[in-house]
Amino acid sequence: MPQSPLKIGLAGFGNVGAGVYKNLEKNRDILRERTGRDIIVHRVVVRDLKKKRAVSLPLENVSTDLSDLIEDDEVELVVELIGGIDRAFDFVKASLEKGKTVVTGNKALLAERGRELFEVAKENQSHIYYEAAVAGGIPIIKTVQESLIGNHIQSVAGIINGTCNYILTRMSEAGLEYEAALDEAQKLGYAEADPTLDVNGWDAAHKAIILASLSYGCWVPCDQIYVDGIEKVTKPDIDFADDLGYTIKLLAIIKLHENRGIEVRVQPSLVAKDHILASVRGVFNAILVTGDVVGETLFYGSGAGQDPTSSSVIGDIADAVARENQQGAMGFVTHDLYGKPLKVEESISKYYLRVQVVDKPGSLAQIATILGDHGIGILSVIQPEDHEEETAPVALTLHFAPFGKMLAAKAQIAKLDCVREEPILMRVEAV
Amino acid sequence: MPQSPLKIGLAGFGNVGAGVYKNLEKNRDILRERTGRDIIVHRVVVRDLKKKRAVSLPLENVSTDLSDLIEDDEVELVVELIGGIDRAFDFVKASLEKGKTVVTGNKALLAERGRELFEVAKENQSHIYYEAAVAGGIPIIKTVQESLIGNHIQSVAGIINGTCNYILTRMSEAGLEYEAALDEAQKLGYAEADPTLDVNGWDAAHKAIILASLSYGCWVPCDQIYVDGIEKVTKPDIDFADDLGYTIKLLAIIKLHENRGIEVRVQPSLVAKDHILASVRGVFNAILVTGDVVGETLFYGSGAGQDPTSSSVIGDIADAVARENQQGAMGFVTHDLYGKPLKVEESISKYYLRVQVVDKPGSLAQIATILGDHGIGILSVIQPEDHEEETAPVALTLHFAPFGKMLAAKAQIAKLDCVREEPILMRVEAV
Repeated sequence: MPQSPLKIGLAGFGNVGAGVYKNLEKNRDILRERTGRDIIVHRVVVRDLKKKRAVSLPLENVSTDLSDLIEDDEVELVVELIGGIDRAFDFVKASLEKGKTVVTGNKALLAERGRELFEVAKENQSHIYYEAAVAGGIPIIKTVQESLIGNHIQSVAGIINGTCNYILTRMSEAGLEYEAALDEAQKLGYAEADPTLDVNGWDAAHKAIILASLSYGCWVPCDQIYVDGIEKVTKPDIDFADDLGYTIKLLAIIKLHENRGIEVRVQPSLVAKDHILASVRGVFNAILVTGDVVGETLFYGSGAGQDPTSSSVIGDIADAVARENQQGAMGFVTHDLYGKPLKVEESISKYYLRVQVVDKPGSLAQIATILGDHGIGILSVIQPEDHEEETAPVALTLHFAPFGKMLAAKAQIAKLDCVREEPILMRVEAV
Repeated sequence: MPQSPLKIGLAGFGNVGAGVYKNLEKNRDILRERTGRDIIVHRVVVRDLKKKRAVSLPLENVSTDLSDLIEDDEVELVVELIGGIDRAFDFVKASLEKGKTVVTGNKALLAERGRELFEVAKENQSHIYYEAAVAGGIPIIKTVQESLIGNHIQSVAGIINGTCNYILTRMSEAGLEYEAALDEAQKLGYAEADPTLDVNGWDAAHKAIILASLSYGCWVPCDQIYVDGIEKVTKPDIDFADDLGYTIKLLAIIKLHENRGIEVRVQPSLVAKDHILASVRGVFNAILVTGDVVGETLFYGSGAGQDPTSSSVIGDIADAVARENQQGAMGFVTHDLYGKPLKVEESISKYYLRVQVVDKPGSLAQIATILGDHGIGILSVIQPEDHEEETAPVALTLHFAPFGKMLAAKAQIAKLDCVREEPILMRVEAV
């Protein structure tokens, strides 16, 4: 029996709020199949009804008063995306007291007043989900809370502020000074007009506090952690670090010490260039989690932005459905929204082909002719000049072609008089 | 009110089974806090009671007959780690029919007969969890199934066989031939005595089938996918690829095509050296998942091994508890198992210190003296020789020291007559 739709309310229709609405509408079919329920945005509260928006507001139930959302008993779940602390706190608290489920992406709210809110949730048997509060689209909260539940988390090292990572990447790779890199980040929309909370390290610190609190089951107070931003990092530091074999990253570090203390801090830090965290460039985020059972794991993706952050909000909404409906998102759900497996002959890629040929003129021409007959373009050819054998390898890279055509061409090439051994064919993947 | 313990049964006590037992015992306290239930291994079935084992069997309820486990009504959840297909199928089916929850790490079983087993589970309102079946300790099943639930998965590109990745890494980095690299992998325990299923690509293919089926909600038949192993990859191919700017990896590729077909294949593939997948070395696994909402995400970790795989099995057991007990693993659980946040003054690392000094002899000596007085060793010094200013930068890297000592030394250095500007201090992190 199909369940009734889940009616949700959005508090805030800024960048992320609009993204949640847009993507819930766009992927409604697959979400219904996977969760067993239709998810409907039933009510929206915004600050300014007349603001011009890239994503249009729904036609009904839009207002500027948060209590409209709190008092709407049809709304089972609210998504808090208004930002800030005091007004958001009051809204989340009132919603929990009404027994509503709360999904929030508000890291400052949770870091500063999460302890109080989780107590309110417990008293009212309601629930708070907050995947979107840390590292945008990367499912780090669920991973630490559920997948790694059997582990003592030994350490977390995260690049969890995309703005800072963009600025440091540009200083390092394009030789920009700090101010120029910040300016560029602002022009590209990667930094806000007032970038203070990003560049002073506190955005990363709020996320680190949430991760540390979750990992260690106790709320880490904001005034007990050490936070340094990137404002003082200069071009000479980037260059010295480079000379020394390092890249400068703003790292959030959480560490469990054997004397049973927890270290939490955010600081610009030198990371060895061959370390996996050094390869995290631009606005991307990555979090290296080490557990006593699982060992080292890394989670990488977009740490901010409308779509990635909505992916996490929608995941949380689906989790709330799954919690209510034990058959929901947790099971293996079959449906026919995607069609059937593709025949491999139709799959397209570039290729690498190595052919062992008798070393005389004309061999390459014969191979090229066969490839041309199958409509396969040649990207490059390597034919080593020095060799002592009678036969020599020719290595080619080939342009995009269906695998079926490629196999047919390879079979013809294999039959050439000048060819010895079965040719070696591999894909060149641009994944 | 504390809940009664969850009694589980282990079918199989090989490498992973023993790891699950060992780690459940080791981390029992934290699991009890986080899930709200004590998890107890109540019964174990093994093939050979007399086999010598690194992890000792429990003292009670150990036998060689799987029906002992199936018929034990106290056991609510069984962990299937016996491997193979037919015997495992019969055991899992019978357990589901008894209403037991099943946790399995058996990729071949699910790829070949998952469709039947999930139907049995549905009929009996029982559940199958299988995080350990794909990519060891990396929580890719939960990520695709739950975190990315709001996404159409556009593509998955995975290095999901550690044996093959080890062999290819050693061929590439140590110049070994295929046979020598395989031999080395066997000696290190990274390849089995009979490595066929790994090197012929089918272990990766089974995992790809599970990921594709989960992503697209339909079971992909084993005979409809294309699988090539790494047996034919030779040293010359590795070298040619290198010349061309590529690294050879065994990639599992899953792609959704707009004409509504699903491509699933496993093939040795050339990956550009600066691609993040190229940096996945040795026995590590990584899976690049692209969703239409989240964009590009990557999940990296140990793809096999006793401990990483047990981490996934234990995560699944906790999920089963959480499903039954809606207050379980899903909430933010507070406890005091870890103690309090550490004072940042006590946190230890290496450091980078840049000081702007008046360019005359003795400046470095004064700085070095202060560092020495605080017990801080110097690792390296860079002092550019050419400069036109009156003052010059000195960049030092310093040995491990408590942050408090480092701050005190920095404050003294800042007060030296020869020092201009506030010195810049950063951490050198070996995360």
